[in-house]
Amino acid sequence: MSDAKKLYRRLVHLKSETNPQRRSIRDGFCGLFGHKVNVLDHYGKKLETLEDNVRMEQLSVAGKEVPAAFVSFKSRLGAAVALHIQQGTNPTEWVTERAPEPQDIHWPFFSSSFIKRWISKLLVVVAYAAVTILFLIPVVIVQGLTNLEQLETYFPFLESILSLTVVSEVITGYLPSLILQMFIAFVPPIMIMLSSVEGCISFSQIEKSACIKMLCFTIWNIFFANALSGTVLYRFDIFLDPKEIPGILADAVPAQASFFIAYVVTSGWTSLLSSVLFRLSPLICSIIKKPFSGKDGDELKVPSIPYHSHIPKVLFFGLLGITYFFLAPLIIPFLLVYCCLGYIIYRNQLLIVYAPKYDTGGRFWPTVHNSTIFSLVLMHIIAIGIFGLKNLSLASSLIVPLPILTLLFNEYCRKRFLPIFEDYPLECLIKKDRQDQNDPTIAVFYNKLSTAYEDPALMPIRHPRSTDDHNSPLLQAGV
Amino acid sequence: MSDAKKLYRRLVHLKSETNPQRRSIRDGFCGLFGHKVNVLDHYGKKLETLEDNVRMEQLSVAGKEVPAAFVSFKSRLGAAVALHIQQGTNPTEWVTERAPEPQDIHWPFFSSSFIKRWISKLLVVVAYAAVTILFLIPVVIVQGLTNLEQLETYFPFLESILSLTVVSEVITGYLPSLILQMFIAFVPPIMIMLSSVEGCISFSQIEKSACIKMLCFTIWNIFFANALSGTVLYRFDIFLDPKEIPGILADAVPAQASFFIAYVVTSGWTSLLSSVLFRLSPLICSIIKKPFSGKDGDELKVPSIPYHSHIPKVLFFGLLGITYFFLAPLIIPFLLVYCCLGYIIYRNQLLIVYAPKYDTGGRFWPTVHNSTIFSLVLMHIIAIGIFGLKNLSLASSLIVPLPILTLLFNEYCRKRFLPIFEDYPLECLIKKDRQDQNDPTIAVFYNKLSTAYEDPALMPIRHPRSTDDHNSPLLQAGV
Repeated sequence: MSDAKKLYRRLVHLKSETNPQRRSIRDGFCGLFGHKVNVLDHYGKKLETLEDNVRMEQLSVAGKEVPAAFVSFKSRLGAAVALHIQQGTNPTEWVTERAPEPQDIHWPFFSSSFIKRWISKLLVVVAYAAVTILFLIPVVIVQGLTNLEQLETYFPFLESILSLTVVSEVITGYLPSLILQMFIAFVPPIMIMLSSVEGCISFSQIEKSACIKMLCFTIWNIFFANALSGTVLYRFDIFLDPKEIPGILADAVPAQASFFIAYVVTSGWTSLLSSVLFRLSPLICSIIKKPFSGKDGDELKVPSIPYHSHIPKVLFFGLLGITYFFLAPLIIPFLLVYCCLGYIIYRNQLLIVYAPKYDTGGRFWPTVHNSTIFSLVLMHIIAIGIFGLKNLSLASSLIVPLPILTLLFNEYCRKRFLPIFEDYPLECLIKKDRQDQNDPTIAVFYNKLSTAYEDPALMPIRHPRSTDDHNSPLLQAGV
Repeated sequence: MSDAKKLYRRLVHLKSETNPQRRSIRDGFCGLFGHKVNVLDHYGKKLETLEDNVRMEQLSVAGKEVPAAFVSFKSRLGAAVALHIQQGTNPTEWVTERAPEPQDIHWPFFSSSFIKRWISKLLVVVAYAAVTILFLIPVVIVQGLTNLEQLETYFPFLESILSLTVVSEVITGYLPSLILQMFIAFVPPIMIMLSSVEGCISFSQIEKSACIKMLCFTIWNIFFANALSGTVLYRFDIFLDPKEIPGILADAVPAQASFFIAYVVTSGWTSLLSSVLFRLSPLICSIIKKPFSGKDGDELKVPSIPYHSHIPKVLFFGLLGITYFFLAPLIIPFLLVYCCLGYIIYRNQLLIVYAPKYDTGGRFWPTVHNSTIFSLVLMHIIAIGIFGLKNLSLASSLIVPLPILTLLFNEYCRKRFLPIFEDYPLECLIKKDRQDQNDPTIAVFYNKLSTAYEDPALMPIRHPRSTDDHNSPLLQAGV
């Protein structure tokens, strides 16, 4: 399909070419031997063969039965019944899911069985754990760069360069978080890739899953690995030792305050300005791509918000604020500037630049809530550890009820508010259904519905190439 | 209500009394002063006043609005829709639950709000944790009795008695598990009491919750506390130290094999024979109660199965078998005898003696499944620890995939089979609904339904006392 599109573009490009020299090409090996042929004819024929092949393939696929379907219901209540009540006696045989918006469907897992999706999910969890652990290697290097003494012992030949004040200041102050930033820039695409083979049937699910993965990854690999790295490197098993965690955290976390303040500046301010406001990387990408992609520069799409890379970043700065506000209050003004900048920039981007690709329905909020609860509990644990270290056991034990109360509050919120994010209540469904009954445009909607969900692989090819009947759509009505 | 019943019984008893001396009583202080009155008249009047009070109370209660109701549906599908789809926008305001069988309802929490039930549940969890921890004290005493040397150091004056072979054999062999048994006999009623204030609206839910509580209690307080007691007493925090658990278990568990073999004999065989087959304790209770309760010995109820005390016991022997079969294979014949005895005795009791109080619908099976999975994982952990102790690190690491695979199997079962225990699939509901449509007796069923669920506190008093109109039911039709 994409081959045909490329050929079609080249054909359009060639037709607009005025130089007759460029419109002919030598047939044969590498275009060096053989006689000259008209390029238009050559590519035209190629395109025809390709499209015929695609049509043959489509015909064979269209005849196949697929063990999955989109089912539309006359009422929202009917859809909710099908969605919430287990269909068959075997709960893995008939699986019902809310259909995503038509443009939001991720087709590869559309007709996969429950078992295939379950196993994919397991494999992705294993792969995710592997990525998260392997990522510690660049973090270790970064950590090495922040400690000049360590670097000098590992690479003694650098000693003369490192003794320069400018070099050492750049290395200790700015370089470490820049390198970390560079490595982290590769992570969101990896997370999206992992999530896309997890068994999700829509891009929104993939992005939500990638967002959670990215958040855990950030907290583990930036917060914990940086805060504990000295300890983590030599004793990887501290997380198997829960009762020592408060002490270790209290010992290690305050020591890294200057690193995280620098991180807020380099990662927070810079990335907010450069990547969100100026959108430098898409600009560079489009400049590089332009010469290669012919004359369709005007096909530039309106960008959508990459939730999976932005939400974890914002939440991570929240975590830094909550955990460091009593350890190193100096972080607060930096975060305040970040938050004010963020408000202005994101408001501008959301209103003017970004176009939403799908309606999230507020489904990212529970992630935000959970992250905040986690930050609070982590803060309490660090506080317990710090009071423990300073031999204030009364203060330490007075804080113990705080995490318990926070977790109880979380539990209450799960009961009270989480169901609203998961599905619509009967009250709203029936009210909407009654409104629909009196709506004259609903018949038009049902008509649209029958053709809304079509596998792009089965869509007819719509190049305005010639007037012959090859061009008529293969499937007249919706499948 | 129960006062009225007692009085009524005494009245019936007195009416059948032939001795006229016993039918009169002295009015006044302690029946010593005042003139003689006819006892029948005296109690009759008392009963009348009591019943009038009850009627007044009922009238005032019947007028009140209660924020809870039983709702019946024309079809099973309708009921399932109301049950599974959140009703209002606030999920804590309209809470729907499957109605228990009429005789199974536990009224105290019938009209409680979500918050009240949630807080009750939290308090019960705290109380349960307290009971589970406090119970360690008798276990410690028992453990002290099994180690004669320890006992002699604590109580030096007992030395002369303990030097007798018979005494020391009884103390070390039989007494410890007997004392443990006695303490444990008090636990099921406590668990039932805890579960009954947890917010359940049916006795079956209470019993299921008590069963799970009892199972955890048994595993913690009998298995872990006995196996680890030497270690637990001095280092209560080992469970905060996950990576040392296999080693500690491998060290402590095999040492207690003889105690658990004795436990199988004393607790398993004896309790199975005495409590299940001969039903000694109900017999003793009824013999003691009989003289006090008048002549209603013939009102003896058919006993029901106390799931909450039997299922955890059977599952605990399963756990012992799974964890000890490779440490002390001698336990296997004892358990085999227990299982054979159990099969014969329970089969007999279930078929002939017990009458089911409610239909469990197989809801106890997931508990059995979870307990088995836990036993298997515990066995793997002990095996890892043992191979670790014997410096067979290859064997130790070869076992690591086993618990992971077991947990994956459990996860698969949760997806594949658990929904069936929780609710009926649409397929079955609709099939049953269609059968009902052609059923001529369904009208009779609907008629019965309207009076099936009545609060016993509002039921009319039905003593065939006299023929006056006081006796007519207060509420003619169902409320």
